[in-house]
Amino acid sequence: MLHPAKRGRVTLLTNARILTMDADMTEIERGWIRIDGDRITALGTGTPDDITGATDMGGDLVMPGMVNPHSHIAMTLFRGLGEDVDDRLFRYILPLERECVTADAVSTGARLATLELIRGGVTTVADMYYFEAEIGRAVADAGIRGVVGQTLGNFDAPDHDSFDQAFALTDALVDEFRNHPRVTPSIAPHAPYSTGPEIMARVARWAADNPGVPVQMHLGETDGENDWSREHGGTPVEITDRAGLLIPGLIAAHCLHVSDSDISLMAERGVGVAHNARANGKGGRGIAPVTEMRGAGIPVGISTDGPMSSNTLDLFSQFAPVSMFQKLRGHSRKPMPSRDVIRMASIEGAQVLGMADRIGSLEVGKQADLIRISLDDPRLQPVYDIYSTLVFAAGPSDIRATMVAGEWLMQDRQMITLETARIMSDARQVAHTFGAKIAEIDRRST
Amino acid sequence: MLHPAKRGRVTLLTNARILTMDADMTEIERGWIRIDGDRITALGTGTPDDITGATDMGGDLVMPGMVNPHSHIAMTLFRGLGEDVDDRLFRYILPLERECVTADAVSTGARLATLELIRGGVTTVADMYYFEAEIGRAVADAGIRGVVGQTLGNFDAPDHDSFDQAFALTDALVDEFRNHPRVTPSIAPHAPYSTGPEIMARVARWAADNPGVPVQMHLGETDGENDWSREHGGTPVEITDRAGLLIPGLIAAHCLHVSDSDISLMAERGVGVAHNARANGKGGRGIAPVTEMRGAGIPVGISTDGPMSSNTLDLFSQFAPVSMFQKLRGHSRKPMPSRDVIRMASIEGAQVLGMADRIGSLEVGKQADLIRISLDDPRLQPVYDIYSTLVFAAGPSDIRATMVAGEWLMQDRQMITLETARIMSDARQVAHTFGAKIAEIDRRST
Repeated sequence: MLHPAKRGRVTLLTNARILTMDADMTEIERGWIRIDGDRITALGTGTPDDITGATDMGGDLVMPGMVNPHSHIAMTLFRGLGEDVDDRLFRYILPLERECVTADAVSTGARLATLELIRGGVTTVADMYYFEAEIGRAVADAGIRGVVGQTLGNFDAPDHDSFDQAFALTDALVDEFRNHPRVTPSIAPHAPYSTGPEIMARVARWAADNPGVPVQMHLGETDGENDWSREHGGTPVEITDRAGLLIPGLIAAHCLHVSDSDISLMAERGVGVAHNARANGKGGRGIAPVTEMRGAGIPVGISTDGPMSSNTLDLFSQFAPVSMFQKLRGHSRKPMPSRDVIRMASIEGAQVLGMADRIGSLEVGKQADLIRISLDDPRLQPVYDIYSTLVFAAGPSDIRATMVAGEWLMQDRQMITLETARIMSDARQVAHTFGAKIAEIDRRST
Repeated sequence: MLHPAKRGRVTLLTNARILTMDADMTEIERGWIRIDGDRITALGTGTPDDITGATDMGGDLVMPGMVNPHSHIAMTLFRGLGEDVDDRLFRYILPLERECVTADAVSTGARLATLELIRGGVTTVADMYYFEAEIGRAVADAGIRGVVGQTLGNFDAPDHDSFDQAFALTDALVDEFRNHPRVTPSIAPHAPYSTGPEIMARVARWAADNPGVPVQMHLGETDGENDWSREHGGTPVEITDRAGLLIPGLIAAHCLHVSDSDISLMAERGVGVAHNARANGKGGRGIAPVTEMRGAGIPVGISTDGPMSSNTLDLFSQFAPVSMFQKLRGHSRKPMPSRDVIRMASIEGAQVLGMADRIGSLEVGKQADLIRISLDDPRLQPVYDIYSTLVFAAGPSDIRATMVAGEWLMQDRQMITLETARIMSDARQVAHTFGAKIAEIDRRST
């Protein structure tokens, strides 16, 4: 997996317009990047002294690969299902997950997702689902980077009947990926209401015993969660804190229903937030107080949630909603400028995942996770403000090449690590089974 | 312009997945469409008896070309300018329009726009701007369909110093395009507050004298407009009605600030609405009551506004906001289902423009304005609900071919009627001048 033979290989990219996303937001109008093995070892303006074996970027934009800090990637297979109905969780999702989600289906869905992620410029994804080892293997095989979290919940999960079993699955996941260079195993209690204070406390103890294994959880997402937490005498954030799980590095997804004092507490504890603008918007759930959370110093990344919630896994589809939602809340054009959106999609997302020392910006010493974006489409021209171009005009199809850890995963939109035709055919086959199941559900309920 | 030699030509499209968008929302899983000259003369399921000279659509989706009922297409040249600042109108737009917007610049911007429209699947656009004859010529040359409206306003307009002059420009526009098969001349009073009751009354009289020439106007868009209308003793809609301009077929753009009684009045008068979700969201202005307007029977189309307001001219970038905004308002997943979004983008947009007898659906006797969409990208698979796929996963790059009035304007993403390289190079040159002007404005104001 480490490709030891390739470790000494040097890749030199020249004639690139570079957004480094470093602390100074350094931009290089025409520059170059040198990559030794999996790391960036030099970058600069103009042309380097020695351009032996250089790859000319043709003036295209080169920026850090994007970070998607919350998803359920195998749910590509549920994309577009149960739209526009309020009872989708009980009507569609739970029956489908109980009856159709097998290790094989998860593997197929995750492999379809890795195609989409690479083609959409996402180089690191955080996932929480079932049969999570399958997700880890799909991520490993695709060549991208992932934080893969085994979900623990008190409902009929497709891969465990008890919390004990879920902890055992998590232990096995950690064992399998402990030393993987790109796949980070993780533990993912589903949500406060679906695990409860005791299990949250147990997860906190487990996390203390497993340093370096991130914890992911849905937090402050639904109205039902608010009702549950009121009965338990606090906000979801407060109850999580009392259980000892509001720990540094917690990856908290959604945080739609958080009060000002919740925000202060989250900032104090060192929690990171994965913001799911489209999923929250499509669910009619509301707009998260992203401006306030970031103002309090909480890192907030841009995530997609699962494709049953917001349909796609690239971040482009989230950008305009992320910006517009805060502008609508503030009744002004000023909140959430495009520069900030792109920071959230790169270095801030890396901070949420505790990986900002390795990824999220193009800097010497960091991993060579980068994307090449063509600005040639008429839809993108002219470019006065590159961040605005990326946020409000670009799309996944403008990604021309994707590199992770110094390896090209896509060039000129041709996949390198993945067999597109086989993955698509497998996915269509599973979707056919799911389609029959849905027809059955619809027949039963009419 | 009529290509008389081609009038007898027959085009037969086979092996297509067809969304007709007719009154019954008829869908054909595998079917064909016969086109004689500029019109659809037959369509059906399976394979036609005679397939001589047929073009195989390879199972791709074929649907009506989309209708964008409100834009300022020449403003492609301002795309991405003045983002994230509240005083953009006075700081950037007005000085730029006064000093930089010439007939040549309008022509260049409009030609860049037609590239983007064809590539994004928009076959009919309604525009209101200055030097509108240039827009009409660009639309005519590109082969798309347009409603081109000369703007009349009481501010320093780049092409007129008085309303008399603006009416004269409109008369000339009507003369030039009166008999054009695809370009419909139009009159476009800027807004109630920027024309005033007397000029609105004069436009109403002018419109009565020029039957078949549609009237376009911004209505109920800004907070400032509300302040103005309060001083005039009514809502913007009421003041427009009192001036006699709330006439059948009025194309009212935005309608963000409309009361329940305004909506009843608009429905009674037979007004159509162009909804600019992204422009309103990016401006932090609010969410239009689209659910209520449609509920009252008002046709509502999906439009982009100018590229300085929402950056792109294709409707895909509007779809998710259009749906999400209504779901957020309703605090439910149910409002604005994907089927309705696609209706608004096609037949309902055609109704807004008064063209539903000719375009907006694929039916025998209608104009052959259609688009071919590939569903092959991993991002679009699987497809359980084709409307959801279009609204929440597809993008302009999935458009494979575009036809207007029986003529292919793009095939396999290759432009047929337009010279991409020349248009792009012209646009870059003008953008360079604009960039220098902006730098000057920024220097002056610091």
